[in-house]
Amino acid sequence: MSPLGISGLAHLFGILAFILLLVWLLHYREGIDYDSDKGFRVFNRKESQEVCSHALHLIAIVLGIVGLNAVFKFHGMENIPNVYSLHSWIGIVTFCLFGLQWLFGFVVFMLQGASVNTRAKVLPWHKVGGRALLFMAVCAAETGLMEKSCFLTNLKLLHGRESNLINFTGLAILLFGVFVNFSVGFS
Amino acid sequence: MSPLGISGLAHLFGILAFILLLVWLLHYREGIDYDSDKGFRVFNRKESQEVCSHALHLIAIVLGIVGLNAVFKFHGMENIPNVYSLHSWIGIVTFCLFGLQWLFGFVVFMLQGASVNTRAKVLPWHKVGGRALLFMAVCAAETGLMEKSCFLTNLKLLHGRESNLINFTGLAILLFGVFVNFSVGFS
Repeated sequence: MSPLGISGLAHLFGILAFILLLVWLLHYREGIDYDSDKGFRVFNRKESQEVCSHALHLIAIVLGIVGLNAVFKFHGMENIPNVYSLHSWIGIVTFCLFGLQWLFGFVVFMLQGASVNTRAKVLPWHKVGGRALLFMAVCAAETGLMEKSCFLTNLKLLHGRESNLINFTGLAILLFGVFVNFSVGFS
Repeated sequence: MSPLGISGLAHLFGILAFILLLVWLLHYREGIDYDSDKGFRVFNRKESQEVCSHALHLIAIVLGIVGLNAVFKFHGMENIPNVYSLHSWIGIVTFCLFGLQWLFGFVVFMLQGASVNTRAKVLPWHKVGGRALLFMAVCAAETGLMEKSCFLTNLKLLHGRESNLINFTGLAILLFGVFVNFSVGFS
């Protein structure tokens, strides 16, 4: 299989994960927007696509802020303590590092705040950092799905079909991460 | 930071994660061995270390089988349904692929079941597959910690200190995965 084919698979699973997530949230959860796992979709950086890439990542940051805000609001309304679970820890650490990575990329590459030499030097770090952040975002998403399904199981609200849908969504997100990793590994 | 430094950090977080997991299981959980997240520790392949690598991965497979067996036994004893959670799905898929990857590596590289040309051709795939499996194993571990902590929260058995320990363990496993990924990215 060519790197292009792998990249295709990565896109396929990304889209599949997104559709499954939408089906889950809209069909079963009546549009409840709780998990902050939106950052994972936009992650295929090339130098020639810099502007588009930075814009998409900025959208991811905005969506992340909206998501985090929704969580804190939801917790406040339901009297649930904040930032106690592994999902919340991973999610917040990932989001903060993602913000720093974006800011770094924006200043160094977009605004060209560093010399050509320095830019060439830090680019591999920026790329590897992006891959690490994808890795962390997938973990945040998986633990989020796990937490939500546990929470619904507690309340006796989770049944076979919805549980399977959540699991398929989780697998699709995982395979998305894996195939992005695969395709980056060959590029 | 040099690639050697990153590899050092990967080892550090791997050891830290292992120690935190031991502290958790031995101090809080009285040695209960439930999660199947043992495969993540042994993952630094180099051609010159083939025999050692394959032996360690074989140990990981044996530990995985023991762990999976313990889960099914525990579920049987407590009347908990099998293979219903996202953790179990990710864990089983990862374990099966890990087994295939090991078998493939054993036949192709150890027994030299393929020509030198073919071996050179499939090596990058084997490496990238290993990285993907590490990614999946970390996700299995994180969802496992998440599931166990949810389960303990349900039973009102999880309190601040233990919860924090679980979260630190999860972060250490995550950072272990990230730094292994970093160091492989530069090698």
